[in-house]
Amino acid sequence: MTDPRPATDPLPVNDRTRHRRLADQGSLDRADLDAILDAGFVCHLGVVIEGRPVVVPTVYGRDGRRLYFHGSVASRSLTGGAPVCVTVTHVDGLVLARSVFEHGVNYRSAMIHGVPHKVTDPEEKLAGLRCLTEHATPGQWSYARLPNRKELAATTLLALSLEEASVKIRTGPPDDADGPDAELPVWAGTLPLTSTWGTPVSDPALPPGTPAPEHVARREGTGQG
Amino acid sequence: MTDPRPATDPLPVNDRTRHRRLADQGSLDRADLDAILDAGFVCHLGVVIEGRPVVVPTVYGRDGRRLYFHGSVASRSLTGGAPVCVTVTHVDGLVLARSVFEHGVNYRSAMIHGVPHKVTDPEEKLAGLRCLTEHATPGQWSYARLPNRKELAATTLLALSLEEASVKIRTGPPDDADGPDAELPVWAGTLPLTSTWGTPVSDPALPPGTPAPEHVARREGTGQG
Repeated sequence: MTDPRPATDPLPVNDRTRHRRLADQGSLDRADLDAILDAGFVCHLGVVIEGRPVVVPTVYGRDGRRLYFHGSVASRSLTGGAPVCVTVTHVDGLVLARSVFEHGVNYRSAMIHGVPHKVTDPEEKLAGLRCLTEHATPGQWSYARLPNRKELAATTLLALSLEEASVKIRTGPPDDADGPDAELPVWAGTLPLTSTWGTPVSDPALPPGTPAPEHVARREGTGQG
Repeated sequence: MTDPRPATDPLPVNDRTRHRRLADQGSLDRADLDAILDAGFVCHLGVVIEGRPVVVPTVYGRDGRRLYFHGSVASRSLTGGAPVCVTVTHVDGLVLARSVFEHGVNYRSAMIHGVPHKVTDPEEKLAGLRCLTEHATPGQWSYARLPNRKELAATTLLALSLEEASVKIRTGPPDDADGPDAELPVWAGTLPLTSTWGTPVSDPALPPGTPAPEHVARREGTGQG
């Protein structure tokens, strides 16, 4: 039997990406990184402003080994050229152990370190915005009106390499089934949490009866994250 | 008619909390801050380590105007005494506009700035851990085994004042119904995203048939976030 997973090189380890805490939850598999990033569309972008941390939620898209994110040209957190930490987390449920100390969360999380660069080439900028749009809403780029020159100029697009990344995943039941607490008359297990797309809500300004396009409507009831 | 909302003072504004971008999405209502924090249990904690940002997902609990979070005493991001930025975000759906430029996300987000302090007083530590536990799983503190002295010593508990906070909320349809794009034959609206608690999954190590306690089981099917 061959390994069914795609052949990937492991994630490189350095002082920032080494799993110091809860190393058993760490993964060096690039396929895990890609899967976590592809399952979401909002990251938490950390920057240092005047020596202090600032963490901003923002949308992102993945194109191979590159992450794109964007914002207004006036944004203080999207300057490019400065170190960032981008973290994407999916919370999969509560881990309810026999003891409070062993309580935790089932989750998948990716942390990417790097120095993003501002994309200025108009063609790459358009490709990056396409990636962002299609990442969140597949099919939308060829459906909605594309950005014009003025809108492109008003948008800052940053690209971040996915070379330096750290992945942590926790799944399964609590860890205290093999100790003395296992004798306690206490239920233990997990309470799963799932994210689901709902029914598309039409803009009230639309002509009545305008249907949502198939690429949007078909997501209803499917999971996200 | 009196205002049905609880009387609260507005959130103070300074250079860090002023809404620079998308100011119409900003809220200075402390009740909004409390509601966003109470609707979640995982935050993104930003710290500066060796001059670079690090953003770590971690659980938190709110007790009045104080946020607690915890971790291992060995954690590099939980030292206390250094500035942090704690961000809690609920993603409520995609905003699909007529033009790509107007696409966005409906969300509720709170960003708290401050310098947390390490809680060392044993009684306050126990109260903080109780807050953390009850915040994520109401009813669990009086059900599971409480931390013993050794476990308390192995836990770092940080407390952060909620004085310096910034809240942003976006709801409703896209913003491009009043421009020339409204004439386009393009559907516009939102695709809601909801988080729901699932069926409790018992630890396979439990005696078969052990039921989940009522305070856990009753959450099945209810929303989170």
